[in-house]
Amino acid sequence: MRLVIVGATGAVGSEILAVLNESAWPIDELTPVATPRSAGRRLPFRGGEVEVVALSEEVFDDADVALFDVPDDVSEQWAPIAVSKGAVVVDNSAAWRMHPEVPLVVPEANPDAVHDRPRGIIASPNCTMLALVVPVAALHRTAGLRRLIISSYQAASGAGKGGTDELFDQLQRAVKDPESVTAGLARDVLEPGEVFPHPLALNVIPQIGSVRDNGYTGEELKVGDETRKVLGLPDLPVTVTCVRVPTVIGHGVSVHAEFERAITPTEAREVLLGAPGVEVMDDAANGVYPTPLHAAGRDPSYVGRIRADLHDPRAVTFFCVADNLRKGAALNTVQIAQLI
Amino acid sequence: MRLVIVGATGAVGSEILAVLNESAWPIDELTPVATPRSAGRRLPFRGGEVEVVALSEEVFDDADVALFDVPDDVSEQWAPIAVSKGAVVVDNSAAWRMHPEVPLVVPEANPDAVHDRPRGIIASPNCTMLALVVPVAALHRTAGLRRLIISSYQAASGAGKGGTDELFDQLQRAVKDPESVTAGLARDVLEPGEVFPHPLALNVIPQIGSVRDNGYTGEELKVGDETRKVLGLPDLPVTVTCVRVPTVIGHGVSVHAEFERAITPTEAREVLLGAPGVEVMDDAANGVYPTPLHAAGRDPSYVGRIRADLHDPRAVTFFCVADNLRKGAALNTVQIAQLI
Repeated sequence: MRLVIVGATGAVGSEILAVLNESAWPIDELTPVATPRSAGRRLPFRGGEVEVVALSEEVFDDADVALFDVPDDVSEQWAPIAVSKGAVVVDNSAAWRMHPEVPLVVPEANPDAVHDRPRGIIASPNCTMLALVVPVAALHRTAGLRRLIISSYQAASGAGKGGTDELFDQLQRAVKDPESVTAGLARDVLEPGEVFPHPLALNVIPQIGSVRDNGYTGEELKVGDETRKVLGLPDLPVTVTCVRVPTVIGHGVSVHAEFERAITPTEAREVLLGAPGVEVMDDAANGVYPTPLHAAGRDPSYVGRIRADLHDPRAVTFFCVADNLRKGAALNTVQIAQLI
Repeated sequence: MRLVIVGATGAVGSEILAVLNESAWPIDELTPVATPRSAGRRLPFRGGEVEVVALSEEVFDDADVALFDVPDDVSEQWAPIAVSKGAVVVDNSAAWRMHPEVPLVVPEANPDAVHDRPRGIIASPNCTMLALVVPVAALHRTAGLRRLIISSYQAASGAGKGGTDELFDQLQRAVKDPESVTAGLARDVLEPGEVFPHPLALNVIPQIGSVRDNGYTGEELKVGDETRKVLGLPDLPVTVTCVRVPTVIGHGVSVHAEFERAITPTEAREVLLGAPGVEVMDDAANGVYPTPLHAAGRDPSYVGRIRADLHDPRAVTFFCVADNLRKGAALNTVQIAQLI
C-alpha cells in the first residue's frame, strides 16, 4: 500500500497522520504532500520520519490511494490527475461530494458505496453532517427516517487553525477587561477578526459559509444535501440552522428526527448502543451527555439527551457531538481508504 | 404609585432599577427590598437615592405594586402576603407561572390577561421563552401556529451573577494555557465549578435545570408550558432542547415554526417588521442577523435568518436573540406593571 496525503500539514492533514500513526493498517510507503513552502519538513511517522514534498504530478506515480484535504479548487484540479496516475482518491473537500459519479461515504452508513466509483474518486462528507449521520443512519435502518430538523453548535476549528487562533486572541482580550465582560458589554472590547464575520468570543454567530438566494448558508445546504445522498433518501426533508459557538473542537448538533413508525426513546437508545461508531452517553440526571470538551480528540459520535417528542410518537430528539477534525474529517477519510 | 421591588440587589433586580431609571413612568415612592445583609445600602434612583430595606410584612403597607425577583420558595411565601396588604404582585419566579388563577403575561402577546388576576398575582415568563414568544406571537396572529421545534443558546447570566463569574474564572484559566486550548485539550485545564455541571468555557452544556422522568429538563418543559399558556394554545406541540453556551448575556433561539396555512419568509418578515417589541435584523449576506453580543443591554427581541422550510410551505425557520436580563426578565416585569 503506497499512500499519498495531499494537504498533510494542515489541521485535518495533521490529524490524518495522527490517526494513521495510531492504527495498525499496513502501509508500505507514505508520502506527505503540501505547498512548496512546507517541502522538506520531516514529520514523525510510526517510529521513523517521512519528508514533505511539494505537490506535482510525479507524487502520484505508483500511488494506490491519495487522501486529499485541500481547498475545493485545488481538489477539482488535482484529484483527476491523481486518478490518471492510477490512484484512488479519497477527498475531504466539498468539490466532489454532490457529483453524481462520486460516492459520498460514511463507513458506518453506506460502506458498499466505495466500490461504485466511476471517476476513481470517493468523497468524505462535511464535518457537521458526520456528527449526526452516524447515529441517524442507525435509527433510519430501524425505523425509516422521514424528516430531520437540526441546529448546530460548531467549533472554531471548523474554520481551520486560523479560526482557533482568532477565537483565542479574542478570549485573551476579553478576560483582560472583567468589568465590561461580566456586565455583558463585551462588544465594547471585541472586534471582528479575519476569519469570522463577528467576534466569536462570548458570542454565537448564526452564519457559517456564504449566504445563498434562498437565505440558507452553504454549510446548511451541504448538511441537508449530503445527508440525503449518504442515506440514499433523495427526497428527505432536512431543515438546518448552523451556528458557530466559542468552542475549539467538537461540533454539537441538536437533532429532531421523525420516522415512518412510532419509536420510543428506549428503543432508540438500544439501537444506538449497538450502532458502530456511536457511543451513548445518556444519563442526564447524573450529568452524563455529550459535550465538545469530552469529544475532542476522540473517535465516536457521542449521543445523549435521547427523549420522545411528547406530541408525536414517531419522533425522537437528541443531542450529539463528534470531534470535527477527527470523525468529522481525518478519521472518516482513513476509514474510507481502509474499505477500498 | 408606590412601588416595591423584592430582590432589588440581584442581577434582575438591579436591571429592574436600571429600566425604571430610564423610563418616564411616574413613580411616587420606590422601596427596594432585599435580604437583611443588604439592608441600609443606598441605591441611586432618578437623581436621588433609595435605601434598601430588609424583607418584612411592613414593606408592603400602602404599596400599589410589588415586583418580585426572588427564588420560587420565597415568592410562594411572600407574594400572598404582599397581596393581602393590597399590592398587585408581578412575579418573575417560576412559582406562579402555571397556576390556573395567575395570568402569565407578555405585553406584546397577551396584554389583556393582566386584568383577570383572581389571586392578585401576575407572572412574568421564563427568559428563554420571552426571546422567542414575542416574534412567534406576531406570526401566530397572522397564520395560526401549529408546532414549534426549538434549540436554545443560553448565556451564563441566566444562572445569575454566580454563573457569569464562574464562566469568567474558567476563561481566565483557559487563556493561560494556549497550547492545551488551541490543541482542543481544554478539558485538561478546566474543572467544573459550583454553578454549571461541566466546565462552560470552550464548551456547550445540553442541560439547564434538573432532569425530569421524561428526560426533559425543567427549563425545557417551562419553555413549552409557558409558550402554550401565553399564546392560549393549550395543545400546541412544542419540542425544546436547552443548551448553555459560553456567552455572558443574550439568549439565542433557533426556531422552526409550523403554521395552519402557507407562509413565505417575505410575509413573515413583513409581519415581524410591524410587530411590537421585535427588531428585524435580516440581511445575512451582509452579516446582519442577531447575536448575543449585539442584543446585550438592549430591549427588543432581535430576529433574523428568516427562511422557508424548503420542504413545507407552512413552516418558516429563524434565529432570535434577546437580552435575558432585560426583555427576558426586568423589562417584561416593568412592562406588566405599567399595564396594571
